[in-house]
Amino acid sequence: MELLTDVFFYMNIIGLIAFAVTGSLKAIKEGLDLLGITVLGIMTALGGGIVRDIMVNQIPNALKSLSDMSFALLGVWLAIVVYKITKTDLQNRYIILIPDAIGLSAFTTTGAIIAYNANISFFGVIILATITGVGGGLISDLLLGKVPSVLRDDFYASCSIIGAISFYITILITGDLTISSVICSLSVFMIRVVAILYNWHLPKFS
Amino acid sequence: MELLTDVFFYMNIIGLIAFAVTGSLKAIKEGLDLLGITVLGIMTALGGGIVRDIMVNQIPNALKSLSDMSFALLGVWLAIVVYKITKTDLQNRYIILIPDAIGLSAFTTTGAIIAYNANISFFGVIILATITGVGGGLISDLLLGKVPSVLRDDFYASCSIIGAISFYITILITGDLTISSVICSLSVFMIRVVAILYNWHLPKFS
Amino acid sequence: MELLTDVFFYMNIIGLIAFAVTGSLKAIKEGLDLLGITVLGIMTALGGGIVRDIMVNQIPNALKSLSDMSFALLGVWLAIVVYKITKTDLQNRYIILIPDAIGLSAFTTTGAIIAYNANISFFGVIILATITGVGGGLISDLLLGKVPSVLRDDFYASCSIIGAISFYITILITGDLTISSVICSLSVFMIRVVAILYNWHLPKFS
Repeated sequence: MELLTDVFFYMNIIGLIAFAVTGSLKAIKEGLDLLGITVLGIMTALGGGIVRDIMVNQIPNALKSLSDMSFALLGVWLAIVVYKITKTDLQNRYIILIPDAIGLSAFTTTGAIIAYNANISFFGVIILATITGVGGGLISDLLLGKVPSVLRDDFYASCSIIGAISFYITILITGDLTISSVICSLSVFMIRVVAILYNWHLPKFS
Repeated sequence: MELLTDVFFYMNIIGLIAFAVTGSLKAIKEGLDLLGITVLGIMTALGGGIVRDIMVNQIPNALKSLSDMSFALLGVWLAIVVYKITKTDLQNRYIILIPDAIGLSAFTTTGAIIAYNANISFFGVIILATITGVGGGLISDLLLGKVPSVLRDDFYASCSIIGAISFYITILITGDLTISSVICSLSVFMIRVVAILYNWHLPKFS
Repeated sequence: MELLTDVFFYMNIIGLIAFAVTGSLKAIKEGLDLLGITVLGIMTALGGGIVRDIMVNQIPNALKSLSDMSFALLGVWLAIVVYKITKTDLQNRYIILIPDAIGLSAFTTTGAIIAYNANISFFGVIILATITGVGGGLISDLLLGKVPSVLRDDFYASCSIIGAISFYITILITGDLTISSVICSLSVFMIRVVAILYNWHLPKFS
């Protein structure tokens, strides 16, 4: 149990940093200034959780905790330094995709747990888990005036949705929050990694 | 009375489906994938109500009820099937404009009632009623990276505003929520239909 | 004390009108219709405060008060009249930049006070103060499908951030809300004016 809590704790930190790096690098590429880069990094890392907390009618945890914001700012700083040294945005490199998948997994699970405790419906759990996982990236795309990439291209939000469904089914069967969380984390992470390796896409109709 | 409740109930369902169809068809046209189409359909149908509930400090009803989401998903499915068969997006056809007007009318009225019960000001009632009616379409336009069409082109949100004002005046005079709701629904629907038939527009200044 | 409350009261009104004028003029230039111009003006004036109130879990004050909305509508009307007479959008003219700086100062201070009373962290105070100051402009840029100018160009949000930090430090040292508010207002206004005069910018990295 304690080991699991620890693992989850570090997964969250990895996710915060990875998401902030991704967001800041997007902002650098678009020519935003230092403030824009910082806001994009912070919003990518914390935006999903903020929207989720607002939806379950709580003051966002990101406003109350010092640590979440600190890790996000560390990610912003890392992005600037890494960009200066490598002159590359690391997009589609495993060094960013794997930590990002860890973050997606941790955030989705956090969202599913909070949604479950807020006593909402099956669909509500899926929506809140997915918003927690992908909401930050979606908001940062919107801030850059782009159609959010999660809606268009990748097998990314789908991992969150599958993870949330497996969370819900597991908790219905076992009633155990720990087992359900492990199942959710593992399924999001594993499906995301397979989706990266095999370049999965959802169908389009137009 | 019971007949009225029934009528309103079915108007809401028609609206959910019509809004979801409109949103999903927009997403198909823009080349989004299955997830994007689903999100756009759901957000168009439920987004206005979600924002309204957040603003009056409640957990969004759409997260707690199974039925709203189910009707929205039915609309998404309908849009995909209809697009496959007809290869048209039905825009500006009466078969979508009339159910859409019914939805606008039902959603605006719901928003006005909830706003009135939340004990807010005259302007607050207008804002919440209008957000409930047009917020979903506005969000889905933003997700597609477009200037929301309600701000630019059509005599659409104006119907909600007029309906909310008539709701507010009627309840001030009669104090009766049922009469005010009927007046609001009827005025939104009738003005919207006339606006479609006569192709009304608001003035521009540039 | 009473003089200070009065000064702050009038600063807020000047800010509401100036922000609404700015937002409406942007909408006129983009060819929005009367509704779009009104929504842009209102959102620029009230949007930051609405998002802040939602984040601290309160029904937005703008929905409950009649006066805020009235001043915003006055700003919308002024913008339309001024544009008709002068055929200019007044951008980068002192006649709009100075009232705008007064508004930024008043809104930032209001945000910092509310955030402080909501008992949130150092970062939370900065975020809420800054959102209150620049959130409305950011939302109105998003509604126009643009990358928000505060993220890209100007030394604008930075004034709010510096003001919020000085607020937080002052209240830690003195424990006095009045002194902290005066320090915050003055620093935002003075830094913004200097930034305008010397055309300050933040560094970029791309």
